[in-house]
Amino acid sequence: MDPVVDAAERRTRELEERIAAEPAAFRVLTGDRPTGPLHLGHYFGTLANRVRLQRLGVDVFVLIADYQVLTDRDVAERLPEHALGLAADYLAAGLDPATATVFRHSAVPELNQLMLPFLSLVSVAELGRNPTVKDEIAASSQATVSGLMFTYPVHQAADILFCKADLVPVGKDQLPHQEITRTVARRFNERYGPVFPVPDALLSAAPNLLGMDGQKMSKSRGNAIALSATPDDTARLIRRAVTDADRHITYEPDTRPGVSNLLHLAALCQDRDPHAVAADVGDGGAAALKKVVTESVNEFLRPIRARRAELAADPAHLRGVLADGNERARAVASRTLAEVREAMAMA
Amino acid sequence: MDPVVDAAERRTRELEERIAAEPAAFRVLTGDRPTGPLHLGHYFGTLANRVRLQRLGVDVFVLIADYQVLTDRDVAERLPEHALGLAADYLAAGLDPATATVFRHSAVPELNQLMLPFLSLVSVAELGRNPTVKDEIAASSQATVSGLMFTYPVHQAADILFCKADLVPVGKDQLPHQEITRTVARRFNERYGPVFPVPDALLSAAPNLLGMDGQKMSKSRGNAIALSATPDDTARLIRRAVTDADRHITYEPDTRPGVSNLLHLAALCQDRDPHAVAADVGDGGAAALKKVVTESVNEFLRPIRARRAELAADPAHLRGVLADGNERARAVASRTLAEVREAMAMA
Repeated sequence: MDPVVDAAERRTRELEERIAAEPAAFRVLTGDRPTGPLHLGHYFGTLANRVRLQRLGVDVFVLIADYQVLTDRDVAERLPEHALGLAADYLAAGLDPATATVFRHSAVPELNQLMLPFLSLVSVAELGRNPTVKDEIAASSQATVSGLMFTYPVHQAADILFCKADLVPVGKDQLPHQEITRTVARRFNERYGPVFPVPDALLSAAPNLLGMDGQKMSKSRGNAIALSATPDDTARLIRRAVTDADRHITYEPDTRPGVSNLLHLAALCQDRDPHAVAADVGDGGAAALKKVVTESVNEFLRPIRARRAELAADPAHLRGVLADGNERARAVASRTLAEVREAMAMA
Repeated sequence: MDPVVDAAERRTRELEERIAAEPAAFRVLTGDRPTGPLHLGHYFGTLANRVRLQRLGVDVFVLIADYQVLTDRDVAERLPEHALGLAADYLAAGLDPATATVFRHSAVPELNQLMLPFLSLVSVAELGRNPTVKDEIAASSQATVSGLMFTYPVHQAADILFCKADLVPVGKDQLPHQEITRTVARRFNERYGPVFPVPDALLSAAPNLLGMDGQKMSKSRGNAIALSATPDDTARLIRRAVTDADRHITYEPDTRPGVSNLLHLAALCQDRDPHAVAADVGDGGAAALKKVVTESVNEFLRPIRARRAELAADPAHLRGVLADGNERARAVASRTLAEVREAMAMA
């Protein structure tokens, strides 16, 4: 066991109990970069969890991180289209704009201003050591590290703290990412008085889904099933999935990763155990497995896709949802910035 | 001759001709950190030039750089008081709030948001190489370099470009400081289309005034004559000035720096040549020189001090001037940010 992950899991169980007892006491900040349609990896990895928290009564803030697109590429393409697409994905998956606040990063200047006081609270050495920045640099296609990427953990702190979120849902691999946010909140409070909660990571229970080629599911790899894909495209993608030659289908993630990933996907869609799905397929081989997976996915996504099609047909409505979210986020950010300026004796 | 300074001087002469011909076509951005009262070094180094440009008909923006106070210290002290003091100094010196826009950095979120796109246009290597940052680090009392200091040239770019200033008044030693602003403007325009002017440095003609101890004039060294000092304090400071034993007073900056600095100061106040002031004093020695200097300074500052006393007696008026300036700056910044988001296809 990794002691850090272990501690985060214990803490998450504790938090989930407190959330169940008093959901309205919590605010969650989460978000996505508007680089393309969301896929099943996003859905089971984070989106389903956001919807669950919202339905419990937690206040959910969802950031469309448009500036962050520029951390690892020079020009952000089709941003307005991708932002509307994200909004459609969110609402189709069950986020309710009457309670959840969906907004665009670049539309909330008062949030972004928090960058300046927060930058004064971290050293260049800390920024250079940050694992997020190191990961981003390694994954980046840019020749040089931009100032935006280098200061990324500080934008993230502003994104999380502007609305005083106390919970940030993350996967295991993202645990170190919000350490600077916690540091910034603590240092600000020590130096200027108690303004910010020190937010907790809420570990996602969902194990990682792989793409159809056995790699990490990602739009750019072309191995991901988008929520908005057609049933035919879905079938085509699953038909190409990597399996193995053993016709007897069993759930053994370590020795049969391809087959087990498909079983895992079908099981998530059916809300069943992957071993049970495997038993259904029995000796049917990869073809029968893929048929089951395709049907499960398409069945599962059918209502989401129907809602998404309706939403996509009414871009004015989606724009209204974002405009409303932007306005709510600005009101929250303005209050926080006023508190921050007051605490810093700048007002 | 330093070829960089040489070129800047040629360019400044060219610009001054164009300003004289069409002053309303130019906008100047300049400012100060609110760390204490302005002194004669500020007055003759930059403030008089701002007033001159304003009277010519140039649109003058003056930034009270409150966040920048945090680049080289942990906590900014008495900011509201210092901001009001700056406003009083500006208005007493002749800046007219009916035409000049005096505003506080921290009150203009749309300006500060420009940090994010601008950070994407510069590399960490460029930030590390920047002479401003190197100077600031060398002059700083902080143990570590903060993210705010490291990114300082990018805030400066936002400060200058938010209002599309085409002129930035600087001293010779500050020439490299705005290179990143020019780079950011050029790169933004190349990547997203023509939004920003590439601002020019307007070299100040005024040679540096030294403090009464022969060091750089600076509030923290206690060697500076504040615009708001009393005539008695002024006399006391000048009495302490470093001179030499030669009773025959002559203007020879290289060999008699203390005496020549006093002559220079009196000459600026009398709007005469320092040699002429020296001839007046003749063989009177340091005591006679100091008497002339004290009278010149107090005479020169009398109307400024009278206006300043009136202004300081009405803090509500000063707060109103700042509130009005903040509002005008926000309107300008909102327009620029909207253009920037549009050019970046984020709107």
